[in-house]
Amino acid sequence: MTSPAPDSSPSPAASTAPGLFVAFEGGDGAGKSTQARLLADSLRAEGREVLLTREPGGTEIGEKLRALVLEHGHGEIDPRTEALIFAAARAAHVIQVIRPALARGAVVITDRYIGSSIVYQGIARGLGAGQVRGLNDWATEGLWPDLTVVLDLDAGQGRARRTAGDAAEDRLESEPDAFHRSVRQAFLDLAGSHPAAYLVLDAARDPGSLAADVRARVAAELPAPSRGGAA
Amino acid sequence: MTSPAPDSSPSPAASTAPGLFVAFEGGDGAGKSTQARLLADSLRAEGREVLLTREPGGTEIGEKLRALVLEHGHGEIDPRTEALIFAAARAAHVIQVIRPALARGAVVITDRYIGSSIVYQGIARGLGAGQVRGLNDWATEGLWPDLTVVLDLDAGQGRARRTAGDAAEDRLESEPDAFHRSVRQAFLDLAGSHPAAYLVLDAARDPGSLAADVRARVAAELPAPSRGGAA
Repeated sequence: MTSPAPDSSPSPAASTAPGLFVAFEGGDGAGKSTQARLLADSLRAEGREVLLTREPGGTEIGEKLRALVLEHGHGEIDPRTEALIFAAARAAHVIQVIRPALARGAVVITDRYIGSSIVYQGIARGLGAGQVRGLNDWATEGLWPDLTVVLDLDAGQGRARRTAGDAAEDRLESEPDAFHRSVRQAFLDLAGSHPAAYLVLDAARDPGSLAADVRARVAAELPAPSRGGAA
Repeated sequence: MTSPAPDSSPSPAASTAPGLFVAFEGGDGAGKSTQARLLADSLRAEGREVLLTREPGGTEIGEKLRALVLEHGHGEIDPRTEALIFAAARAAHVIQVIRPALARGAVVITDRYIGSSIVYQGIARGLGAGQVRGLNDWATEGLWPDLTVVLDLDAGQGRARRTAGDAAEDRLESEPDAFHRSVRQAFLDLAGSHPAAYLVLDAARDPGSLAADVRARVAAELPAPSRGGAA
């Protein structure tokens, strides 16, 4: 096992491939999937190849592992087993999907990545941030995003958004507010530990305005666009 | 992540619980499940509580993970993902089943354990023995068997035994002989690295004679039997 990076210095931007790797993180209901899609649309409109994906999942084996963890009815899964299942799904995701896309120059946008595991399994469920970081460094062979966007929302707002729809909450989403508060603080701490690799935004703002801020930050990281693809 | 133990000094006998933890290891077709059952029968006959289990599997979530890896048809799983899935199944097995049984004084007998992961994922598939050991030390919080019985069979004999029945070989069993030879050597190397915690037996011998040797070695490790259970 590679030794874990210390908590205070994560190892982002390990991608030396020609593409760009962007992750969206934050609690449930913060708008991660919406912002990920808006960024993908914007980049595709200027002719870039974009791979939009999500975790846990992103591959056939990963989706099956995600279903095992999220479904109700097979009994509680302990935090250590859960962390290992998510790390397995992430390993497949990186090997089968993310690294090949980065190698051909694509922008890879993922809805959740290692940050979610550090926050949910490492901090909120008590396994330890450094332990979960070490596990995921091994699973991904050290691939961290070039940029992680944290969509920050307080626990009350998150709950209101999640229960506004008709869909039943899944196992993780049905945890009480105190859990969501600890998750929120853990994401802010993660971003604070390496500010250059993170963009923290108030998720309560207008989605279009948020998308513009994300787009501007991503523009600074991108190489010149190739115009070979879409018009 | 805890740092992995160096290859030359595994950390067996970490069980300080009142029970005894015995693992059977070896290539496919070596007779592990037969010997595990014979040992369980013998110990139950003298009134001991015995938990007979297997890996990957041993729990509801573990059986589902085992099925994901072993079934044909969902494409190749890379070695890293496979190692993480097996480690997840093992974590659940240890937490839900093995540690509780050892704590109440049972003899736990498992058909495969960490040794199989070190040999199959670490050595035969090239992830590195030390890396896979470190991963599994983390998954099990350092729980190693008090005794590991290695049933040693050469690759040709193993193939003959496997194909004698009618059942189709699963994905791992259908690997070629060279793979089985490297697996055999890896089990011998593992045992040689810490002889006091291993019993290596020639699996081509008569099953009854093997069972007697296993029983004699286990007797030396056991506390006095409790006669409160079966007659």
